[in-house]
Amino acid sequence: MSAPTDAPKASSSAQPEWVRPTKTVDEPVLRVYNSLTRSKDEFVPTKGRQVDWYNCGPTVYDSSHMGHARNYLTQDIVRRILRDYFGYDVNFVMNITDIDDKIILRARESYLLAQTVSSNSSLTPQLLSTTQEAFTKFLTSKLIKSLPSPVEPPSSPNATSFDHFEAIVTKDQSDAAWAKSAREKEEKFGLYLASLSKARVAYNVAEKRIEKDDVGGEGVRDLVDGASDVLGPYLGDTLGDTIADPISVSRQLASHWEAKYFEDMNRLHILPPDTVTRVSEYVPEIVTFVQRIIDNGFAYEGGGSVWFDVGKFEGADGDGFRHEYAKLQPGSKGNKKLLDEGEGALTASQGKKQAADFALWKGKSKPGEPAWPSPWGEGRPGWHIECSVMASEVLGRGMDIHSGGVDLMFPHHDNELAQAEAYHGCRQWVNYFLHTGHLHIEGLKMSKSLKNFITIEEALRDYSARQLRLAFMLQTWSAKLDFKKDLIIDTKSKEETFDNFFTNVRARMNDAASRGVNTDGKHHYDELEKALNAELHKAQFDFRAALCDSFNTPAAVQVLLDLIAKVNIYLSTRGREYNIAPVVNIAQWITRMLKTFGLGEGSAVSDATAIGWGKEGEEGAGAGDFETKLDPYLRAISTFRDEIRRLAIASSSPSEILALCDRFRDNDLVNLGVQLDDGQGADGGALYKLVDPSILIKAREEKAQAAADKAAKKAATAAAAEQKRIATLEKGKVAPKDMFRPPNVVEGLYTAWDEQGLPTKDGEGKELSKGLQKKCAKEAKIQEKAHEAYLAWVKEKGE
Amino acid sequence: MSAPTDAPKASSSAQPEWVRPTKTVDEPVLRVYNSLTRSKDEFVPTKGRQVDWYNCGPTVYDSSHMGHARNYLTQDIVRRILRDYFGYDVNFVMNITDIDDKIILRARESYLLAQTVSSNSSLTPQLLSTTQEAFTKFLTSKLIKSLPSPVEPPSSPNATSFDHFEAIVTKDQSDAAWAKSAREKEEKFGLYLASLSKARVAYNVAEKRIEKDDVGGEGVRDLVDGASDVLGPYLGDTLGDTIADPISVSRQLASHWEAKYFEDMNRLHILPPDTVTRVSEYVPEIVTFVQRIIDNGFAYEGGGSVWFDVGKFEGADGDGFRHEYAKLQPGSKGNKKLLDEGEGALTASQGKKQAADFALWKGKSKPGEPAWPSPWGEGRPGWHIECSVMASEVLGRGMDIHSGGVDLMFPHHDNELAQAEAYHGCRQWVNYFLHTGHLHIEGLKMSKSLKNFITIEEALRDYSARQLRLAFMLQTWSAKLDFKKDLIIDTKSKEETFDNFFTNVRARMNDAASRGVNTDGKHHYDELEKALNAELHKAQFDFRAALCDSFNTPAAVQVLLDLIAKVNIYLSTRGREYNIAPVVNIAQWITRMLKTFGLGEGSAVSDATAIGWGKEGEEGAGAGDFETKLDPYLRAISTFRDEIRRLAIASSSPSEILALCDRFRDNDLVNLGVQLDDGQGADGGALYKLVDPSILIKAREEKAQAAADKAAKKAATAAAAEQKRIATLEKGKVAPKDMFRPPNVVEGLYTAWDEQGLPTKDGEGKELSKGLQKKCAKEAKIQEKAHEAYLAWVKEKGE
Repeated sequence: MSAPTDAPKASSSAQPEWVRPTKTVDEPVLRVYNSLTRSKDEFVPTKGRQVDWYNCGPTVYDSSHMGHARNYLTQDIVRRILRDYFGYDVNFVMNITDIDDKIILRARESYLLAQTVSSNSSLTPQLLSTTQEAFTKFLTSKLIKSLPSPVEPPSSPNATSFDHFEAIVTKDQSDAAWAKSAREKEEKFGLYLASLSKARVAYNVAEKRIEKDDVGGEGVRDLVDGASDVLGPYLGDTLGDTIADPISVSRQLASHWEAKYFEDMNRLHILPPDTVTRVSEYVPEIVTFVQRIIDNGFAYEGGGSVWFDVGKFEGADGDGFRHEYAKLQPGSKGNKKLLDEGEGALTASQGKKQAADFALWKGKSKPGEPAWPSPWGEGRPGWHIECSVMASEVLGRGMDIHSGGVDLMFPHHDNELAQAEAYHGCRQWVNYFLHTGHLHIEGLKMSKSLKNFITIEEALRDYSARQLRLAFMLQTWSAKLDFKKDLIIDTKSKEETFDNFFTNVRARMNDAASRGVNTDGKHHYDELEKALNAELHKAQFDFRAALCDSFNTPAAVQVLLDLIAKVNIYLSTRGREYNIAPVVNIAQWITRMLKTFGLGEGSAVSDATAIGWGKEGEEGAGAGDFETKLDPYLRAISTFRDEIRRLAIASSSPSEILALCDRFRDNDLVNLGVQLDDGQGADGGALYKLVDPSILIKAREEKAQAAADKAAKKAATAAAAEQKRIATLEKGKVAPKDMFRPPNVVEGLYTAWDEQGLPTKDGEGKELSKGLQKKCAKEAKIQEKAHEAYLAWVKEKGE
Repeated sequence: MSAPTDAPKASSSAQPEWVRPTKTVDEPVLRVYNSLTRSKDEFVPTKGRQVDWYNCGPTVYDSSHMGHARNYLTQDIVRRILRDYFGYDVNFVMNITDIDDKIILRARESYLLAQTVSSNSSLTPQLLSTTQEAFTKFLTSKLIKSLPSPVEPPSSPNATSFDHFEAIVTKDQSDAAWAKSAREKEEKFGLYLASLSKARVAYNVAEKRIEKDDVGGEGVRDLVDGASDVLGPYLGDTLGDTIADPISVSRQLASHWEAKYFEDMNRLHILPPDTVTRVSEYVPEIVTFVQRIIDNGFAYEGGGSVWFDVGKFEGADGDGFRHEYAKLQPGSKGNKKLLDEGEGALTASQGKKQAADFALWKGKSKPGEPAWPSPWGEGRPGWHIECSVMASEVLGRGMDIHSGGVDLMFPHHDNELAQAEAYHGCRQWVNYFLHTGHLHIEGLKMSKSLKNFITIEEALRDYSARQLRLAFMLQTWSAKLDFKKDLIIDTKSKEETFDNFFTNVRARMNDAASRGVNTDGKHHYDELEKALNAELHKAQFDFRAALCDSFNTPAAVQVLLDLIAKVNIYLSTRGREYNIAPVVNIAQWITRMLKTFGLGEGSAVSDATAIGWGKEGEEGAGAGDFETKLDPYLRAISTFRDEIRRLAIASSSPSEILALCDRFRDNDLVNLGVQLDDGQGADGGALYKLVDPSILIKAREEKAQAAADKAAKKAATAAAAEQKRIATLEKGKVAPKDMFRPPNVVEGLYTAWDEQGLPTKDGEGKELSKGLQKKCAKEAKIQEKAHEAYLAWVKEKGE
């Protein structure tokens, strides 16, 4: 209304006043569930569109499991939404924890176990006795401690440890209820029991081998491998201090598992971080950081370690504010169990003033532990300090987002915040703390003892990366996710809905194109089509609203599925007279949104991490990929030709060349997923098809099996025939002249014989009847032929 | 400062107060150059994130040219930036103008020319005379009118038209300056002259054919095709009213060029619109729309047409505002030339009250013109009304963006705004009017007569779609773009900079991986790396600022290139001790940003318009592509094996098999771009490489040429040797007994011979010396052998 009708008219060559548009719709604002407030806060990155994000990465000492998948996949989904949907320039930093008590212990054990194998060339009673000691130690220090009701340790350890173990096992087996309560009360019990049983078997085998004096070969490795769970900790305890270079021993193990971790992440299509930091590479920075906290008055040295002074920090005056401790989980302050867990297995607490204090720097407690120099003597960083230091190094005095698993909230993240705020003298080092929810399996916490422990590698055998991602998206990122049968069924059903929709739209596009739409002179945007377009726009709005609601992926996925349902209704209402254009539009939008979630990628993250804009005239950035994928085929061509040439140069027979052609078809090509049907192609050549290699390999195996079965049957028939022939031949073993004499006839059957050995008198000395004599002569004649055959066979056999 | 230090301490289990973050950086706001204000206005879409956008599409009656490319490619770039960078849900609507005077004329001519060919089975004087008439008409009504100085039309048209034409052509050729001024003053002149010359040639050929009575065959088609520019308009004028179904005649031509248009757009990787509307499909809606404008008092019927009453509209009271006319180009109000051009070639102005009024509905002026029913009699829509109607139909009462070429600003877009605002009774139907700038070629307007007219098809022969897009991005979308040599050089150089950068980063990644970085126990984020990361974040900020500045693509591209320069400096400073991580990060970001511009796609828009999320385990949506691309390799494998088998079955020799192996290497594999170096691979086999097939084919051809040269040389040597042999043999032709007789010796050299034919007396009857006789006998003996060889050769030849 800024130009009232009685206003003077503008000069005719000047442009009239433009009305600045106003929004008629409330645009949803991104809000993020923030552990620092336990509520959804509006997301305001301080640097405008750049989002600085630090994520707690893995401690690398074992395979990544579904708990890791839940954590990193969920963060990847949120990161992609921020980057590719909301258009933020996300700066994602992640650490690798490669200095850690678990790593030190595991690395040391691996190293000492390997040394035991290499330094024992044969099984010795000494090795058996070491195992026995380890067994006893394990039993008393681990298994018995994990029992639900106290069991007396064996009075004489060496003599009775096995008996004692039997007693426990027997109790466990006889008293199922007791065992169940044991498992539930302390799940380690089950694991310890399994380790002991396995060690026991290996011990028994080794004992028997020594008894039989079979002490070489695989004996040592079998014993050490079988008893490793028991022997490892024992060797670590007793020989740990003999390790000359513990840093590189630790680093080797960490490096191995770090590579495996990134492999798993890659298979889950998780984008690599923009910056990766390793604790082992930041020790000097950590020392400097700790020193400044001491200088700021919030830490003290004690017993060779440096401790964070929680009491001093809490409530201390900052620049216009008071420092706060345990911002995330104030209720857990002073929780000794959580604090101890946070300190790690190898930490001594000498020099610590208050129970709530925690280690910034751990003084070297024993020789053989990795240690770095510091003003407080040799030692290593505490767990919490690494993240404060590395995040500060890369992101500076603060960040927009910090993320991690919900189990890290206290003490790890609370201590990390305290350290960083003590160092920087700032009030709020992290603005948004995102904690990804727990993962349960069928309602239970995942654990090895419950046998519901699933590594990522195992999960990817049963489910595709897309299925796992979609399944995780069906729960909000911050809530507990129960990976149960219902969820899997639901995920697969939703995946199928998307698949069917895409297939259907593509088919309809072909149908519409082949029938030549839009030739009736009318447009096809009637009420139904306008309504469908409106559904798309509503879905786009709802989708945005869902993602603005703290990245509510289940709601966002539901928006897509509801839209698909609308399209299906539209198509079934219209019959053959549909307008393909709005349908295609919707399908393309859904495709783009799925890709935004990282659901649209192939076997690698290559789509999302590609470098370069590809060669013109080729599809996308996959140019290099094509060459990589072509390589095995080229190798097959080249090798086949090489072999043919070798045969030809050696003037080999045609049959050898044909045999090579068959092998090429049945082995090399089958492994590549190429099926050749000889004589089925043009000009009597072969017909080639691309088939799933596993199907071809299975077919080849079945064929081989059938051939083997046939051969076996044939061999069996031949063997039976041979046996029969031999039986017949064996019948001719007796010479005709002996056939009527004992032992070939019963002693006393005949009493006199002629010169050909034919019987003349019976047992009673009576002359044989003419008929009987004739019959004997006839039998002798038959036997003569059989005997000749027998002699020939014997001669043949002898040669 | 919301928690003063003397504030009471919160209870220990409650979370402390969280400080709401504040931006420390001014985030740039998107501003768009708006033709309605001639300034950059902040972009505020009324529906939040949904952006309703109507774009003026093509009038489809000819090939799309570089002017179209500039228009649609530029709009595509802006659309992609809005959608994929700023994350708007863009709703892009475009019309196809398939009712238009140019289409009607062109369609009618095409139709009548085709009819002339099909209804004349032979060349007739009648046809010649029609052509002559057409010629005269064209000369007087077009060519002469386009002359810079008046030339009298021929007094007797039939007799002198050709002479008159000659006079003009002669004048044109003799007076270059006059001709030049003619071209510049009215560029149509050159085109008309070319049309006439072409027609003249065709006429002459036909005349000669009739003289020779060669009147069948291709004669009719040659004449009609050759004279089509001249004959078409003549037939249209004289026979236009005989066309029974002018709507479908028009639609056929439009449909053909619409398909071509979308093909061209596809090749330029321009995203298809979300909704396409065709005028011919919206006639009923147009009638209703026009009626309401009449009802609202802003239009009147006159002479069977409906006219928009500019005088009544301008300044008329709306609901709290005054209607304005010519908002975009108020200075052009009443510009008769522009108004007339806007009205089209076939429009009569009967019934129009004021010169500034324009047609909403054109009454049918002649039979044979396509016409639809209306309350005002049969007719067709005016040009401007279509966009008002279709945009309103799809987008409703207003829109965020309207776009089109800058030449459409007045009267088309100004009239369109007036109509729509008159219809809706609204003040501002379009909030942001975006006009894409002109395209010039080497500083000149593109025109057929200047011979600088380039169709998109032609442009794509010289430049790739990516080069064209990048070239257009090097100028802001709203400015005039001069497509000149300098721009092309600049574009190719920038393309090469990107290419080299990507190649270099990929190579460095391989290098870094093969050398195993990060094993020295230190991190590699020192000052240089921190600075490089900071450069990325600065570039991300600057890039956003550039795009916020009315999609300033030249500035945005420069940001990317500057960042590449920074990376190159970093790499050359670091030498071999570089940290690959920040480099990869930057390369991935640049890749993503280029893809955002539509520069990262392959040969089709498939990447951007893909439907579905591909099959798992395959690369993106390109799964089928791999199989397609793999096919020729599989065929080669299969065929080679087929042939080897055939040879083996036929028990061919090893040398034949080896020859096949050579042919396979030199022909089949070379054609696939596979180079095999025998003996250079592992185990003495071949080494295979993927090389550009053209290089391999060239090498093969050179090799073949060398072999051919060698063979020719060998053949020449052999031929020379053979000739020498024949010469030697020919020497033995004479039998020894004749060799001393004429004609083999000079008549009278000898006078007597013995029985072997050896000479005994010389020319003077004197006895030969013994020595001479001996010499002759020796010669005869030699000749005897030569003669024997000669006879054997003759015998051999005879067989």
